[in-house]
Amino acid sequence: MWSRQLNGVLKNVPKIGSLRTTATAVPGEPKGPNIVTAVPGPASKKLIADLNTINQSGSVQLFADYDKSIGNYLIDVDGNVFLDAFTQISSIPIGYNHPELLKVFHEDHKLKALVNRPALGVYPGKDWPEKLRNVLLSVSPGLPQVMTMMCGSCSNENAYKALFISYRAKERGENVDFSELENTSCMVNKPPGSPNLTLLSFHGAFHGRTMGTLATTHSKAIHKLDVPSLDWPIAHFPRYKYPLEENVRENQAEDQKCLAEVEDLIEKYNKKGTYVAGIVVEPIQSEGGDNEASPEFFQELQRIAKKHRAGLLIDEVQTGAGATGKMWCHEYFNLESPPDIVTFSKKMLTGGFFHTLDMRPKHPYRIFNTWLGDPGKLFLLEAVVKVIKQQNLLEQVQKTGNRLKAGLLDLEKQHSNLLNSTRGRGSFLSVNTTDHGLRDKILEKLKQKGVIAGGCGDHAIRLRPSLVFQEQHADIFLDKFSQVLNDVK
Amino acid sequence: MWSRQLNGVLKNVPKIGSLRTTATAVPGEPKGPNIVTAVPGPASKKLIADLNTINQSGSVQLFADYDKSIGNYLIDVDGNVFLDAFTQISSIPIGYNHPELLKVFHEDHKLKALVNRPALGVYPGKDWPEKLRNVLLSVSPGLPQVMTMMCGSCSNENAYKALFISYRAKERGENVDFSELENTSCMVNKPPGSPNLTLLSFHGAFHGRTMGTLATTHSKAIHKLDVPSLDWPIAHFPRYKYPLEENVRENQAEDQKCLAEVEDLIEKYNKKGTYVAGIVVEPIQSEGGDNEASPEFFQELQRIAKKHRAGLLIDEVQTGAGATGKMWCHEYFNLESPPDIVTFSKKMLTGGFFHTLDMRPKHPYRIFNTWLGDPGKLFLLEAVVKVIKQQNLLEQVQKTGNRLKAGLLDLEKQHSNLLNSTRGRGSFLSVNTTDHGLRDKILEKLKQKGVIAGGCGDHAIRLRPSLVFQEQHADIFLDKFSQVLNDVK
Repeated sequence: MWSRQLNGVLKNVPKIGSLRTTATAVPGEPKGPNIVTAVPGPASKKLIADLNTINQSGSVQLFADYDKSIGNYLIDVDGNVFLDAFTQISSIPIGYNHPELLKVFHEDHKLKALVNRPALGVYPGKDWPEKLRNVLLSVSPGLPQVMTMMCGSCSNENAYKALFISYRAKERGENVDFSELENTSCMVNKPPGSPNLTLLSFHGAFHGRTMGTLATTHSKAIHKLDVPSLDWPIAHFPRYKYPLEENVRENQAEDQKCLAEVEDLIEKYNKKGTYVAGIVVEPIQSEGGDNEASPEFFQELQRIAKKHRAGLLIDEVQTGAGATGKMWCHEYFNLESPPDIVTFSKKMLTGGFFHTLDMRPKHPYRIFNTWLGDPGKLFLLEAVVKVIKQQNLLEQVQKTGNRLKAGLLDLEKQHSNLLNSTRGRGSFLSVNTTDHGLRDKILEKLKQKGVIAGGCGDHAIRLRPSLVFQEQHADIFLDKFSQVLNDVK
Repeated sequence: MWSRQLNGVLKNVPKIGSLRTTATAVPGEPKGPNIVTAVPGPASKKLIADLNTINQSGSVQLFADYDKSIGNYLIDVDGNVFLDAFTQISSIPIGYNHPELLKVFHEDHKLKALVNRPALGVYPGKDWPEKLRNVLLSVSPGLPQVMTMMCGSCSNENAYKALFISYRAKERGENVDFSELENTSCMVNKPPGSPNLTLLSFHGAFHGRTMGTLATTHSKAIHKLDVPSLDWPIAHFPRYKYPLEENVRENQAEDQKCLAEVEDLIEKYNKKGTYVAGIVVEPIQSEGGDNEASPEFFQELQRIAKKHRAGLLIDEVQTGAGATGKMWCHEYFNLESPPDIVTFSKKMLTGGFFHTLDMRPKHPYRIFNTWLGDPGKLFLLEAVVKVIKQQNLLEQVQKTGNRLKAGLLDLEKQHSNLLNSTRGRGSFLSVNTTDHGLRDKILEKLKQKGVIAGGCGDHAIRLRPSLVFQEQHADIFLDKFSQVLNDVK
């Protein structure tokens, strides 16, 4: 067992099984993973072959049984029980089949709101403003306005439009109407109506896969190949040396280098008339490899944005909703004012974005589509937010995260030929392996032992457990991880 | 009453109220509209003011009570009862609170599929292939493959990517891998990895509001202003003279002119190296003004697409799911083979697209996102498809549509100074008014009389009733419309 092998900070933690399940766990969880077939098992294999006749399904790993999955445990169609530290690409907030979620639609009013999905921008239901206020704005990172959307890509796409609209409104001047030439030229995709504006993004970023967001995504070639794109500025995002406390000066220099490039690029693009209307950035580059940057980096980034009248959009689609131990990861950065826009989706269950009054278009029908979100998702989120608050889940995430991080650091010390650069906040954690092949091998072996984790970037392992992942789940994960590392070393 | 005023085809139809409610109606509908306040009423006004503190809500018309709304009747928070011939921008398939929809999530398995929303591209639930086959492919317009998505824009965005990917795969040659230069250049948005490909769209088209789809949308300036766009080819879509039977030669010439422009544009764009990978078109341009084109136009468009190796995408987001009296409007066109891609959303409740095997990417993770749809929506669609089939709703739509169209033609004859160009298929119908202001005035007066209809283009009135809109509902609509026309004439 890993607890026998580890020294240091975790020497005195109780053994697996001796921890009582606390109030934050979903009742009815199994005691641990249990693997009864190779993964994928025969039933999954059959279904994968079937699905593959209907569409390109090469990404499917297994078929799950969502009737049986519970809490932090995903159960597949072959009866394999997995501890899930990846949670549907980071999108399950409080575990599978949480009783508070299962009962939401027992309420007739909520079921009807789900079934009669309205065009929220035209005929919303009677409790829509109250739900936006009491559910979404109750967890807003200091921003007074919120729009709901369908998914992460569509949240960013619409937030990008808000950045462009606000930038042009400022250029045009308050209360100045669209010119006739703007009205006609935009209809054929030409300036000045369709202006030569740009957004600055970062190498390694992931903001989505629709064409606007894809122009700001630079994580993997397979996401981008063959799709036409836009000549927009792309700066380098800091790549730190770990452990942070031993590399302070180098990492500060890295911050400065990247920030200088940001400012250079803005000046260069502005000079050629392709003005930078906004900077879009993740608080931790997730798909791109869990790349962190310091609070100072983000503070200075915001100053640069303000100086050049570009909006600052922080994309919290993956980092948001509590995974880092704060509701929003950028709350760690102590920015001098909130960002202009914060986008969300995944664990928030609904897409959308918070924004300043400056980012609110003067005219209706500009940030608009048929559905503009889904009341059914907001009712589910209401239950999630209630559970987060009542059960102090952010505190739980910090406790679990501390345990997990200490364990990862310990394993990194024991296996310095395999692992390095343990990092992250809350239970939003990752560790680098020494190469891509090794990373994939470790993830595969973990899966065969009943633990689902994720990969990101070229050679990182990322953990994205739910907010009800507790210390005892961390111990199980660390134990299995330790077994796999001994196996591959 | 209109039935006393009208001559011709409708002389012998039974009066309102004398028709029995048939099996296709939702039980419990009121007998007709009932307006008790100005619209919006005081309760709606208060909620609009409240919502407006949270986001830009200038598009909101009223607040609805979805607990009380039923069948074809939308009931608002002031107790006003509207006959709904617009159905949430054409997105309610079988009326409000249909009993078959209300019972879907009483089934534990379906409720759990809704609550545990998976990453469908990685860990789908056990019945996912069966549901794709028995629900979606059971209504496919001859296409063997289907992908699910979240909404109309995201369905088109992803379908556009499929067009680009397939075009480049053919250019590159079967089994030829991405070059090193493609892999690196795409990461910074540059060719050859991000190639200079284009899509041809039509003036007046609407395909969505995200950046890729917005580049192919040309319906209203307010949708496009301030958002950067792409230099892609835009051809004219036929604008017919009505009645069609009296303008055959002119309309054929219009087809030829538009088709010649399509071919010219493709040749011009191909010549300058910005190859046209696809043509995207609505079977009836909906937001742009309900502009129809003939089957011959679409047949020839498909031939041009094939000749130039461009994919043909038919966007049935608004026209699909039975509104025209066939499941898919393009089934009226007798194309020599199915289109390469057909996109859907709205009344289908889930977004997505059907496609040929040619449009299926060879590699996984190319048409991909976290959720890739929502099993909960597919369960609702399953109930809708069952009701459509069991109750022969396509036949009902044709019957209702015949009644509505005959009535509109009659009113057009009586009010030729106000109305012209009645057109459409099934109950997907529209009529032009003589100008924009008149159109808006008529829609407003209809609303104050308890009928919700929609506007589209500059001066068209469009009807988008649900599939359970019956002859008696048509009669109520025509009666109110007649009253309004007498009022404004």
